[in-house]
Amino acid sequence: MIETIYQHRSIRKFSNQPVSSDILKKILHAGTRASTTGNMQVYSLIVTIQNELKRKLWEAHFRQDMVLEAPIIITFCADYNRFVKWCKQRKANPGYDNFLSFFTGAIDALLAAQNVALAAESFSLGICYLGTTTYMAEKIIDILDLPKLVVPVTSLVIGHPNESPGLTDRLPTEGIIHYEKYSDYNAEDIDRIYADKEQLELTAELLKENNKETLAQVFTDNRYTKKDNIYFSKELLKVLNKQGFMNNE
Amino acid sequence: MIETIYQHRSIRKFSNQPVSSDILKKILHAGTRASTTGNMQVYSLIVTIQNELKRKLWEAHFRQDMVLEAPIIITFCADYNRFVKWCKQRKANPGYDNFLSFFTGAIDALLAAQNVALAAESFSLGICYLGTTTYMAEKIIDILDLPKLVVPVTSLVIGHPNESPGLTDRLPTEGIIHYEKYSDYNAEDIDRIYADKEQLELTAELLKENNKETLAQVFTDNRYTKKDNIYFSKELLKVLNKQGFMNNE
Repeated sequence: MIETIYQHRSIRKFSNQPVSSDILKKILHAGTRASTTGNMQVYSLIVTIQNELKRKLWEAHFRQDMVLEAPIIITFCADYNRFVKWCKQRKANPGYDNFLSFFTGAIDALLAAQNVALAAESFSLGICYLGTTTYMAEKIIDILDLPKLVVPVTSLVIGHPNESPGLTDRLPTEGIIHYEKYSDYNAEDIDRIYADKEQLELTAELLKENNKETLAQVFTDNRYTKKDNIYFSKELLKVLNKQGFMNNE
Repeated sequence: MIETIYQHRSIRKFSNQPVSSDILKKILHAGTRASTTGNMQVYSLIVTIQNELKRKLWEAHFRQDMVLEAPIIITFCADYNRFVKWCKQRKANPGYDNFLSFFTGAIDALLAAQNVALAAESFSLGICYLGTTTYMAEKIIDILDLPKLVVPVTSLVIGHPNESPGLTDRLPTEGIIHYEKYSDYNAEDIDRIYADKEQLELTAELLKENNKETLAQVFTDNRYTKKDNIYFSKELLKVLNKQGFMNNE
């Protein structure tokens, strides 16, 4: 178990071998066993295999090749639609059209996603999360016919790996774990925590490729810019509103 | 691996046996191996063991006994504080004080949380998530000294179980999995999906205990009410603003 966790790598190249329906079933079942708020199960999984739909999702997900290559893409959604329909059919008055409920559904969906990811890896399949899900939520809602009170929060591509990358570097554990309370970082802490990462060969390559002085600039200027973040923040809030999750009065 | 996932139960009663520091270290390491957006690791874990602090957290978490009983409580936070400090020390201009960045950090934190939960369970420890974390975020920020750009999104209590409950009921898998696109539910679908749950002995007990006609009413009238959801939605949005994550213009 813990070895599966320790050995995780994101896989972005897949063979064209399909995933057997038996294994897919086991993986999906794993998702449904994750903790869920008050056992409400306020999330849904959408398993997309058809080429035409995958092609549309690929377009939404910034045309990343792995979305076309992987035989399966699963979209994890916060979902109060089913629960609210049940309430209404059972003489109950639901009050779940608000931000807290969206976030509750998002937590459910994300814990299920990580169960699915680990279950897939335990069968030697490869997975990669798609951060583009929240950026492109509106388009994904359209492609997958998501009704009100359903919002996609993450996606996984899953398939048989066609690459075997090494473990990704991580900050030293002490850099992200705090004991008892939060200990804020001083300048020396930051230097120490990021030192190994900054000395990687990969970092030298990135600086050259992107023509930057520091690795941090690769993130702020190229990968995750203020302009994009503000644009996609507005889009995501608009989506929450449109899907009916912003009635907070 | 998959058996650990399938065998998950939430544990709410703990023995007073502490968790060995060796096992704790392995569990925390598992958290750091989860997927993280762009390998930014924009989350932090706060491991609280001291009785005085645990008592304060217990008060914040609606005084649920398990928070006092469990030897360890881990608070998982979306955290751009460390990353932004690093950017500023490296001549980079961070733009992460917005809603998208908060949500990105929340995804990181939640994937790490599920790794920690499963790693703990693989060592026969018991865990339970605390949904009260988002409700009481402001108080938890205060107790744990969380700086700007840090917001708690979930917590786990961890310890040696002092109970062995059966598996929790779940909706049939077909109730939460959709193939290709979302298939919306009609009245018959809802009846079928919730039928087993509604016929449980536990449901009969809950109806009697709460003096309600339907199980859905137990949720809407007692457990997750509109009034509470609206109140805590406003609180959570206020916290996001206060922690500096709502500069979306």
